[in-house]
Amino acid sequence: MDWNATAPLLDAARASCLSALDLSGNPSSVHNEGRAARTLVENARGDVARLAGAAPANVIFTSGATEAANLVLTPNFRMGRTPLGIGRLYSSAIEHPAVRDGGRFAKDAIAEIPVTADGMIDLGQLEALLSAHDRAAGLPMVALMAANNETGILQPVSAASEIVRRHGGILIVDAVQAAGRIALSIETLGADFLILSSHKLGGPKGAGALISRGEAMMPEPLLRGGGQEKGHRSGTENVAAIAGFAAAARQAVDSMAARMERISALRDRLEERMRQVAPEVIIHGAGGERIGNTCFFTLPGLKSETGQIAFDLEGVALSAGSACSSGKVGQSHVLTAMGFDADQGGLRISIGVSTSEADIDRCAEVFAKVAGRRVRAGVAA
Amino acid sequence: MDWNATAPLLDAARASCLSALDLSGNPSSVHNEGRAARTLVENARGDVARLAGAAPANVIFTSGATEAANLVLTPNFRMGRTPLGIGRLYSSAIEHPAVRDGGRFAKDAIAEIPVTADGMIDLGQLEALLSAHDRAAGLPMVALMAANNETGILQPVSAASEIVRRHGGILIVDAVQAAGRIALSIETLGADFLILSSHKLGGPKGAGALISRGEAMMPEPLLRGGGQEKGHRSGTENVAAIAGFAAAARQAVDSMAARMERISALRDRLEERMRQVAPEVIIHGAGGERIGNTCFFTLPGLKSETGQIAFDLEGVALSAGSACSSGKVGQSHVLTAMGFDADQGGLRISIGVSTSEADIDRCAEVFAKVAGRRVRAGVAA
Repeated sequence: MDWNATAPLLDAARASCLSALDLSGNPSSVHNEGRAARTLVENARGDVARLAGAAPANVIFTSGATEAANLVLTPNFRMGRTPLGIGRLYSSAIEHPAVRDGGRFAKDAIAEIPVTADGMIDLGQLEALLSAHDRAAGLPMVALMAANNETGILQPVSAASEIVRRHGGILIVDAVQAAGRIALSIETLGADFLILSSHKLGGPKGAGALISRGEAMMPEPLLRGGGQEKGHRSGTENVAAIAGFAAAARQAVDSMAARMERISALRDRLEERMRQVAPEVIIHGAGGERIGNTCFFTLPGLKSETGQIAFDLEGVALSAGSACSSGKVGQSHVLTAMGFDADQGGLRISIGVSTSEADIDRCAEVFAKVAGRRVRAGVAA
Repeated sequence: MDWNATAPLLDAARASCLSALDLSGNPSSVHNEGRAARTLVENARGDVARLAGAAPANVIFTSGATEAANLVLTPNFRMGRTPLGIGRLYSSAIEHPAVRDGGRFAKDAIAEIPVTADGMIDLGQLEALLSAHDRAAGLPMVALMAANNETGILQPVSAASEIVRRHGGILIVDAVQAAGRIALSIETLGADFLILSSHKLGGPKGAGALISRGEAMMPEPLLRGGGQEKGHRSGTENVAAIAGFAAAARQAVDSMAARMERISALRDRLEERMRQVAPEVIIHGAGGERIGNTCFFTLPGLKSETGQIAFDLEGVALSAGSACSSGKVGQSHVLTAMGFDADQGGLRISIGVSTSEADIDRCAEVFAKVAGRRVRAGVAA
């Protein structure tokens, strides 16, 4: 029940990985073996591009979403050969640490866009921040996620894009959790760059992508060397992970509506049972639009660390917030940003394509047990 | 015959990859599934450390050697929390582009260490460069490879280390081609950091490592975010590639002497047959110490591009120089640095553990055919 941390590998992705592992060529080699590996990488580019409604030529493969974020979050861009400076990065208070840390921006060149109590970025504040932006230092860059990793709450990206456009800025959209769960189009979103991850889609770990709307305006490379990925990202391509990523991307766009309808119904059924057992449960963002697989809740009187261990002991893997900090369990910066008293934290249940009704029932049972034990221990009413 | 570009996946590495692909946890998750992935990564750290005679705690996993080079090649280091500036990078003229491009160093903060005609770095020049180094701007950093990727020529790393030590500098050693082919010890080499790649060892593409001698003096992170790898390298670990890297590392240290003896004998036999057929063939570095699997040659009258295509058409995959520039076939910067008239370039044959006597015989036959055709075409005598 922790698909937002990483999704189990899809069978199709495993199969693509395996056959690519046995390709013995380096995609940069011009001999027959090298060309076979190259062909596979180029075909994968098309599959991943389709996931974002983008052109295959605008996909840069990276080692993951963190690298893609660090590549694009830089004050140093180029328009062709002309340097283009970015003066300041505005990123929302609920971004993943890979974006919040701001890549190559100095700490004092990063500003935070607040979110409202409903967990969405505050468009009024974005407008105010960009109105006050000093263009003498360079263009503004705005980084937003399409769907939050903890709450699943969908962000108003298209509306934000209009504001960013009006102020002549660059918009980066972290689509890691949205991809495969809502329809994505870099054009419709109005984004200049999209960030994607393979392993959140059911592909293998070790691949991600930075997708651009065009090729005119590009970040200075982060990894320099052999000049792969048209010079934007050096290093031998991870052919097997890229092949698996492509297979997962194909499956993600295939019958997304039907798949997500089933998944949302399961999630909703789980939430209904949680509310029956513990009406005081707070399900964050339940009143608004969320991706259909995520349920982030706070059960008064249950600390998130305690809750996570209790679920784990019952064989249910869920997460106290996001799983990005090497086993650290801390306060949820997302809940804090939403102005929620985050002291006891929240627990995230996130499901996916192979989650069954039985899994949901089992999770609901364990929830009831954990909620009941809490009452018996007298920690809360 | 192009193992230095990428080695075929070892069976043990494939098996480790496959089982790790099915671990459904994120190593940063604290639940049972997460801990299983974490255990695998930590065990792998021990296996990769042994390859370099280092402590497991000093292994930072990256997406490959290019990322490891870009991580360590930076003017911004830290001693604990205290910033430590590096004033200039001195790298040899025969380094791989991932090192030659200098990572985060500005172009004017990079100086080149020349090599002698025998393909080894010029220690006298290194001494002179470091004597002239202006310490006011920061410490000197020196980057050298243990074995050259094109010629296979072993570099005088320990001797260079003494010079670097004497001048209070930091020594980075690119051990990508040396690992698994000669015994490596970060202590004996006198290196502060070693760079390793999985796929050159018979592991999968997508994993590499930066190994440090201690933990006191570390580069500023290149990938920021979730804080994995003790904060030195954020991003979800590529668990499957790391598992395969570890399996390849175990095999690399296992009976290295016997394996390399067999491989060198095959390489020497091939070179003998090449010399019989075309006594004018120039085998670069044959007079000195090379890794036992590599033969880099120039056949007068045969352009490297033409030669590569001719071999490829006969089903023999070899390389015109290194395979790091996305299919570009250019002049060999290594031959140029050695002062060799590099106009017609060179061809690299590189073999490995599964190369058979029949492969060598076939390669020698094709060499004879290509050399003979060249004569018949009257291009050269």
